[in-house]
Amino acid sequence: MNKAISYAAHSAKEKLVPFNFERRDVGKKDIQIEILFCGVCHSDLHTARNEWQNAVYPVIPGHEIVGRVVSVGADVKAFKIGDLAGVGCLVDSCGVCEDCTDGLEQYCDQEIFTYNSPDKHTGKMTYGGYSNQIVVDEHFVLHISDKLDLAAVAPLLCAGITTYSPLRHWKVGPGSKVGIVGLGGLGHMAVKLAHAMGAHVVLFTTSPDKIADAKRLGADEVVISKNPDEMQAHLKSFDFILNTVAAAHNLDIFVELLKRDGTMCLNGVPEHAHPSPSIFNLIFKRRQIAGSLIGGIKETQEMLNFCAEHNITSDIEVIAIQDINEAYERMLKGDVKYRFVIDMATLKD
Amino acid sequence: MNKAISYAAHSAKEKLVPFNFERRDVGKKDIQIEILFCGVCHSDLHTARNEWQNAVYPVIPGHEIVGRVVSVGADVKAFKIGDLAGVGCLVDSCGVCEDCTDGLEQYCDQEIFTYNSPDKHTGKMTYGGYSNQIVVDEHFVLHISDKLDLAAVAPLLCAGITTYSPLRHWKVGPGSKVGIVGLGGLGHMAVKLAHAMGAHVVLFTTSPDKIADAKRLGADEVVISKNPDEMQAHLKSFDFILNTVAAAHNLDIFVELLKRDGTMCLNGVPEHAHPSPSIFNLIFKRRQIAGSLIGGIKETQEMLNFCAEHNITSDIEVIAIQDINEAYERMLKGDVKYRFVIDMATLKD
Repeated sequence: MNKAISYAAHSAKEKLVPFNFERRDVGKKDIQIEILFCGVCHSDLHTARNEWQNAVYPVIPGHEIVGRVVSVGADVKAFKIGDLAGVGCLVDSCGVCEDCTDGLEQYCDQEIFTYNSPDKHTGKMTYGGYSNQIVVDEHFVLHISDKLDLAAVAPLLCAGITTYSPLRHWKVGPGSKVGIVGLGGLGHMAVKLAHAMGAHVVLFTTSPDKIADAKRLGADEVVISKNPDEMQAHLKSFDFILNTVAAAHNLDIFVELLKRDGTMCLNGVPEHAHPSPSIFNLIFKRRQIAGSLIGGIKETQEMLNFCAEHNITSDIEVIAIQDINEAYERMLKGDVKYRFVIDMATLKD
Repeated sequence: MNKAISYAAHSAKEKLVPFNFERRDVGKKDIQIEILFCGVCHSDLHTARNEWQNAVYPVIPGHEIVGRVVSVGADVKAFKIGDLAGVGCLVDSCGVCEDCTDGLEQYCDQEIFTYNSPDKHTGKMTYGGYSNQIVVDEHFVLHISDKLDLAAVAPLLCAGITTYSPLRHWKVGPGSKVGIVGLGGLGHMAVKLAHAMGAHVVLFTTSPDKIADAKRLGADEVVISKNPDEMQAHLKSFDFILNTVAAAHNLDIFVELLKRDGTMCLNGVPEHAHPSPSIFNLIFKRRQIAGSLIGGIKETQEMLNFCAEHNITSDIEVIAIQDINEAYERMLKGDVKYRFVIDMATLKD
């Protein structure tokens, strides 16, 4: 018996409410973490409200988890009690496929997400970070620097790695001209990270009121994507564009801005399909449209180290767990700069 | 005065008919080629009939040109009278942009196509290879081996390089599992080339009656893409897919067959848009959809040398120039294995 407390959704239509449950016992390779902060990702809302039609209730969301190690299994080598620790979107994978051995567990066909995935240890579903504690296999636990504000580190575990991984994969660095589409939870991290990597960063937004903030976060330029003249000025000039906007939109206006051999990578699956992109635009400059999913465990640690080195965290608003339902409503209105993080000290039995 | 004879289209609705015109005089860097054979590409038909809404009449199609050098300018170094020579889709580019200096003239913003492009030398349009002779800047003239059947070499100048370039760019070779979608003029060259590069080649077709031919051409496997069970057997297994089908179709059934980090490259611009591809399919395996346009001059020479070394030519049906209009009708019905080539000896004044 390993009792835990949480906030959970019990159906698509109900608010999240307090929920008592059990974690598995701490196995030989497991680490038990007292959760101190948990970021609030839009995926949490999608799953709690069954918008992806795959929710198995109760759903305990949360995959931007930071806390302190309170127990370690006999075979755990890399962590000891008292260490800071983080858990992101993944808690298990097959460990033997090409994706896993390449350190890209997020692409493993048997990946287990931190919540709402079948949990082979319990026979139930995995339960996420809106909780006082979690038990996770050592391989999926990250080391967290004590140099950074812990609450503001939490969103790095999803929003941070989801943007860091494609920026690295497509070799963004000094000399790169990089576009970031959208200034939300993902976009604001992408701006910070691409700037720290040394790229020339252009933020695309439909909202003129985001210009000042984008520049404060590290954008060298801000382009209002509704303005064709501003867009035309950047034709065929980008090495890479990271598109963090999941709502259906015209991809062509961004693809046209890529140089020959440039790539636009999409981070979000739209609820309704984007208009079909122009194949002409792809062919006449050998451009590419790609997708990218979070990041592997090794790369997540690399990202956390990079952020500690460059003093990068998320811009956050800390909330009490009791405010989670209101926070969801505010997220839907875009009323957050740029990530809610739950202070788990507010979760009481 | 440099008189030339040809077959030309004078409007979208009229058949091609004999047409007398003038080539420019042979300049210092120019090569004059007596055209011996010219392949018939679907682009010829699109342009002759103004299906891309950009035709400037008269249109003299033809960009799969092989022949013999009959005159060289004073500064020409690489060719002499009597040499075999070829001309593909390009006859000029700016020469100084990054695309040109990288040897990728096909992506130059000022590329001049072999026909129906503004010709800076004459102030008219460029006129293609359905003609007895052509004058071309040395840089855009290719050396042709005398080891191969000359008529069957002609289609290499477009169909060959259009498929060779993406196969090379995406590093197809021994150990690669490569899909080729469609067995037409491009597809049959792609099968031959990918096979010669050492890849495991799977040909996708909707026509069971193409199975035997695809295997003869070098396919290791043939999959009927209308059969979901056959398709499922290849899920997540391809390094690269070259999709030569320009008609609008469901791209997802092929994207799903790519491994993590796999790319599907499209060679054709559909008249009507493809259904919008699934972004989920891209994100969950970091897959890419790309385009590719013909190839640069240096790479075209490399391709011709590769074909000479591996004894690769196009499967062709030689026609007289007087049969060109009938050949267009047969192309529209797919009634050609796999490329018509005009014997230019049939073109008389």
